[in-house]
Amino acid sequence: MSTSLPSPGSLSNRQVRLASRPVGTPTRDNWHFTDEAVAEPAAGGVVVQTLYLSLDPAMRGWMNEGKSYIPPVGIGEVMRAGGVGRVLASQQPDFPVGSLVTGSLGVQQYCSVPADQLRRSGLTRIDPRAGSLTQWLNVLGMPGMTAYFGLMDIGQPKAGETVVVSGAAGAVGQTVGQLAKIHGCRVVGIAGGPAKCEWVVKELGFDACIDYKAGPVKDGLKTHCPQGVDIYFDNVGGEILDTVLTRINRKARIIICGAISQYNNTEPVQGPKNYLSLLVNRARMEGMVVFDYADRYPQAVAELAGHLQSGRMSSREDVVSGGVDAFPDTLLKLFTGENFGKLVLKVADEA
Amino acid sequence: MSTSLPSPGSLSNRQVRLASRPVGTPTRDNWHFTDEAVAEPAAGGVVVQTLYLSLDPAMRGWMNEGKSYIPPVGIGEVMRAGGVGRVLASQQPDFPVGSLVTGSLGVQQYCSVPADQLRRSGLTRIDPRAGSLTQWLNVLGMPGMTAYFGLMDIGQPKAGETVVVSGAAGAVGQTVGQLAKIHGCRVVGIAGGPAKCEWVVKELGFDACIDYKAGPVKDGLKTHCPQGVDIYFDNVGGEILDTVLTRINRKARIIICGAISQYNNTEPVQGPKNYLSLLVNRARMEGMVVFDYADRYPQAVAELAGHLQSGRMSSREDVVSGGVDAFPDTLLKLFTGENFGKLVLKVADEA
Repeated sequence: MSTSLPSPGSLSNRQVRLASRPVGTPTRDNWHFTDEAVAEPAAGGVVVQTLYLSLDPAMRGWMNEGKSYIPPVGIGEVMRAGGVGRVLASQQPDFPVGSLVTGSLGVQQYCSVPADQLRRSGLTRIDPRAGSLTQWLNVLGMPGMTAYFGLMDIGQPKAGETVVVSGAAGAVGQTVGQLAKIHGCRVVGIAGGPAKCEWVVKELGFDACIDYKAGPVKDGLKTHCPQGVDIYFDNVGGEILDTVLTRINRKARIIICGAISQYNNTEPVQGPKNYLSLLVNRARMEGMVVFDYADRYPQAVAELAGHLQSGRMSSREDVVSGGVDAFPDTLLKLFTGENFGKLVLKVADEA
Repeated sequence: MSTSLPSPGSLSNRQVRLASRPVGTPTRDNWHFTDEAVAEPAAGGVVVQTLYLSLDPAMRGWMNEGKSYIPPVGIGEVMRAGGVGRVLASQQPDFPVGSLVTGSLGVQQYCSVPADQLRRSGLTRIDPRAGSLTQWLNVLGMPGMTAYFGLMDIGQPKAGETVVVSGAAGAVGQTVGQLAKIHGCRVVGIAGGPAKCEWVVKELGFDACIDYKAGPVKDGLKTHCPQGVDIYFDNVGGEILDTVLTRINRKARIIICGAISQYNNTEPVQGPKNYLSLLVNRARMEGMVVFDYADRYPQAVAELAGHLQSGRMSSREDVVSGGVDAFPDTLLKLFTGENFGKLVLKVADEA
């Protein structure tokens, strides 16, 4: 099987590259844009047209220098991003032209994946009947996988326990809470603003949602977690983590998934000064990185797709238009909390 | 079986009571002394003469108001303390006169335990052939139990792993390190001053010991933990915890046993600002309270006594004379790090 690009010479690939490492909140100066011709795929390779890109808090970490769970994006490199796309040209029978795929596409209009990078890019075909393309970047994608393995493997929820999740209306939080409800837990979200809180309760079925912008989270936890907190799924860090630590139960589990409140700090990260609550309560705080569970993604996708289809679970994506040029500004919405649902950048029309 | 006090009218019981709650480091004003006559034991009760008292970092926490893993010592109450003593008078066949016991005796010369308090005080007979009386407050007592269950149950050491323990020459640390060596680990202590570090390496067989007073702990960890840190048993908190967090391996376990550097803080506890290392490394930080393992103390005592008798393990107690009057000043040695080994206050002669 071998296919050519639709009109080879005419395709130009607009790319967003990391120009410099940000100090604090990223600015336009940290990015530069390039336009490259798209080459025909070499033997065994594919060219994917990006349809949607996933914008994630973790991206801020990838922009920093230094050792982390994956290497940083290099200066001058195309910014790393997961996405959904359509195979446009292929020398690879596993990925026929027209098939829909997800993987690490980068912030660019076209992603050319050589044969030896197929595995590393995580390129996988997706079934659009299991969920919409944007859901494949949300509940059926990395955020859903993060929610599933973080809650189920690290949190180990038991029916009747109280689960608190911050960033409740965000990509990971929405799935964490709904999964915990399905497993018989009392679920209390923490989110910013009345619209998100109302959606989380009315549409997703959380038992309550605390608006951290409206008043002290401590009061909300007292009201809505009368039996204390057994599992805290933390996406935000900072003050909220510290507050939840004062309300945990014996043998509580805190899943450290992220700390979005701290990612743009120029000061050192704010450590949880109430961490000795772990001692008093014989509790545990544990970090997780979703990539460790790659072998089990299919199982989780199947389960979550089942919940979507049965209507036990729903999702919300905040889709921003504007293509890759809009990437720098759109990314910032994550850190101000402006996004409502999983933040997705639309790069090209689906049809 | 019923026995009377040796010379009832003549015995006066000197006691140290909590007069007020300290702010920061405890002062003499926080204590007051009382002298009470010792009454004959009531039906089912015993009177124990205190021989040695255990001085523990946890005592500082018991002096504070507020919910913790056990209630605080009330104002006016005899200060809580574990100890070893001899039964002086008894209406309780399980504890004949002359038998040696350990339990919560309090900072006083004589402890009268009514029948209904025997269980709560944890009064247990001890076998002086298994270890010296001061070892019964150290490796065979609470510190040993803390080391054993913290390392084995929470830490789950595997041969070849690197274990770091702070407060390495202290009561818990010395047993943690020796146990980890017995289980085939590389063991690196952290302690203050060359004498402690030398003892830990030469006498206890640790692979290395970092003198935190001599230079940056970070450099010591680089030198002595070339494979990173798999288990960190934390007795001190503060800067040292933060430094170790920068060197942990994937799936590392951090046992939060205490935070002696923080107990006299008037500022809030210093939270570990590097806690996101837990995320990057999929690591876990877990608190433990030794009392949870009470049912399994006999098993741990038997194992540790076996190690003492076979010479695979040794111990060091820092025995201070002066009786209960010396308690307020002696306690402070824990927080300055002046003690060398398990800190014990001698209250009466053994013979």
